[in-house]
Amino acid sequence: MAVHPLWEKYPTIQKDLIETKKVMEKSVKIRNKDITQALQLFFEAGGKLLRPAYFLLFSKLGEEVSEKKAHRMAASLEILHVATLIHDDIIDDSPMRRSMPSIQAMYGQDIAVYTGDFLFTVYFHLLATSTKSFRTIEMNAHSMKRILVGELDQMKLRYNTDITVKQYFQHIKGKTAQLFEFACFEGAHFGGSSKAVQLNAKRIGYNIGMAFQIMDDVLDYKATATDMQKPVFEDMKNGYYTLPLILAMEKNHDAFVPYLEKKTELSNAEMKEVQDLIAESKGIERAEEIAKRFTDRALSGIKKLPASQERDILFDVTSTLLNRNN
Amino acid sequence: MAVHPLWEKYPTIQKDLIETKKVMEKSVKIRNKDITQALQLFFEAGGKLLRPAYFLLFSKLGEEVSEKKAHRMAASLEILHVATLIHDDIIDDSPMRRSMPSIQAMYGQDIAVYTGDFLFTVYFHLLATSTKSFRTIEMNAHSMKRILVGELDQMKLRYNTDITVKQYFQHIKGKTAQLFEFACFEGAHFGGSSKAVQLNAKRIGYNIGMAFQIMDDVLDYKATATDMQKPVFEDMKNGYYTLPLILAMEKNHDAFVPYLEKKTELSNAEMKEVQDLIAESKGIERAEEIAKRFTDRALSGIKKLPASQERDILFDVTSTLLNRNN
Repeated sequence: MAVHPLWEKYPTIQKDLIETKKVMEKSVKIRNKDITQALQLFFEAGGKLLRPAYFLLFSKLGEEVSEKKAHRMAASLEILHVATLIHDDIIDDSPMRRSMPSIQAMYGQDIAVYTGDFLFTVYFHLLATSTKSFRTIEMNAHSMKRILVGELDQMKLRYNTDITVKQYFQHIKGKTAQLFEFACFEGAHFGGSSKAVQLNAKRIGYNIGMAFQIMDDVLDYKATATDMQKPVFEDMKNGYYTLPLILAMEKNHDAFVPYLEKKTELSNAEMKEVQDLIAESKGIERAEEIAKRFTDRALSGIKKLPASQERDILFDVTSTLLNRNN
Repeated sequence: MAVHPLWEKYPTIQKDLIETKKVMEKSVKIRNKDITQALQLFFEAGGKLLRPAYFLLFSKLGEEVSEKKAHRMAASLEILHVATLIHDDIIDDSPMRRSMPSIQAMYGQDIAVYTGDFLFTVYFHLLATSTKSFRTIEMNAHSMKRILVGELDQMKLRYNTDITVKQYFQHIKGKTAQLFEFACFEGAHFGGSSKAVQLNAKRIGYNIGMAFQIMDDVLDYKATATDMQKPVFEDMKNGYYTLPLILAMEKNHDAFVPYLEKKTELSNAEMKEVQDLIAESKGIERAEEIAKRFTDRALSGIKKLPASQERDILFDVTSTLLNRNN
């Protein structure tokens, strides 16, 4: 069993993440072998396990904690994340996820709905059996609620060309930053760090999540001519207008409308034209600047954490992650 | 605010259910007004609130409990039930639910996926803020997991004409009996009844749930010629083969296959032929006999509960509910 190469540089956390992944694989074993196997393959295809990793790193800032319970809580966060991914793939009718067919593409949307639901129950079960803090349970419920309210917000403004930067921030705060924020905070809380460190962890997580999502959204617009063979502009075609486009539309709203109205029917040539329009208004550069501001805030928050090996890893990983050009 | 007329005969529980419904309506208030309103209308359209009612009745068998917390726990059970209904409607592509358009029909499957997910978080949140028992949280997680595994089981055997009575029992145990069983058990547990009463509550709930689902499945086959205008045979057309059909197929398997292969294309004339085939094998009568056996077991369990007003109401309601011909 291996985890993403990002973690090779940090053997301790790599070892923890391997244990976390074992918990994940074990926790989805059910009668229904197809589903078990599909989920295990999905885990094997390997996300970066960022949410468990941040949880674990923050938990180690505090006092000695039960490793076994920490791995279960870390696994619960990733399971919740995967559940939302599977349901997102239904909404977006995505054929692929992590370079393999999505659950929805393999088994149809019906199975995908229940598989996501099943993972919510696994999340809930892992959590219920790894914490003895009611506050933790309540915070998890609250956090999960905010994620879903964020998803619903985003759906409501789909295909709305009047979407503002503020509304976009609200969406990504719910759908991405919330879980990063919560993973960091829950880690600090679980590890018994001081209230001040917990609060700082929360802010760091929020800033990482915001930067991470903006950079992810930027990537969708960064396709080069050769990349046009690959699915790009997917968010835009599906009516999710993200920061580079929103910033460009602020300057030149009406020029974009005819393209956006074509939705998924947008041709490659038209995509190129949209790209040029965004380039004119420096939509990508300006989005990247905003991402950088969130990144800087995250890194300066990390610097203020108690001096430790974990702090250094947090700094290193976060810098690598958010300066990614991949 | 009113609740289903079933409860008019029992003013105490009726009052409790009105409070429970208030908790439900309040707990779904979010920024997204459409969703809030759709859910509130859905609650208003009024299910029988059976799961909360059984929970509350069993909780009152025990010592004095916090009414406020009892209403929150009762609400959590109904919210979980509604979440699964909304996701079921996606699977079945159902246009109607409770004589009104389903969430899926009103807002599309995308919103329906997230609305169901959102309700899972509401359930989780209500639960986390109304119990101080980790055992309760863990049991809820476990129960929710079994419901979803039941749904996945059922999906796997969809359109399989070799389905056995045993497999059917396993499905309905997961998708229906589990939540009835859990509502009764959780009520007895919450009210602090003895272990023996808790165990009896569990069995009673299981038997009620099994009888309830079998009778519901029987109704789908009981359509008369005039009813053929309404959606009937829906389960069969959608590949969910239930007890009356399974029992009939045991006797005359091959006669059914050509009809079942037509799936949703089955004409009214053909439905009538299937009905005749089922009648020949006494599929409905035999299914009803089996339901009656579960009902009898439920009622004899109720008789063994400590003498109390609640026991009498439980007996009365359960008899009414399971002898329904509606």
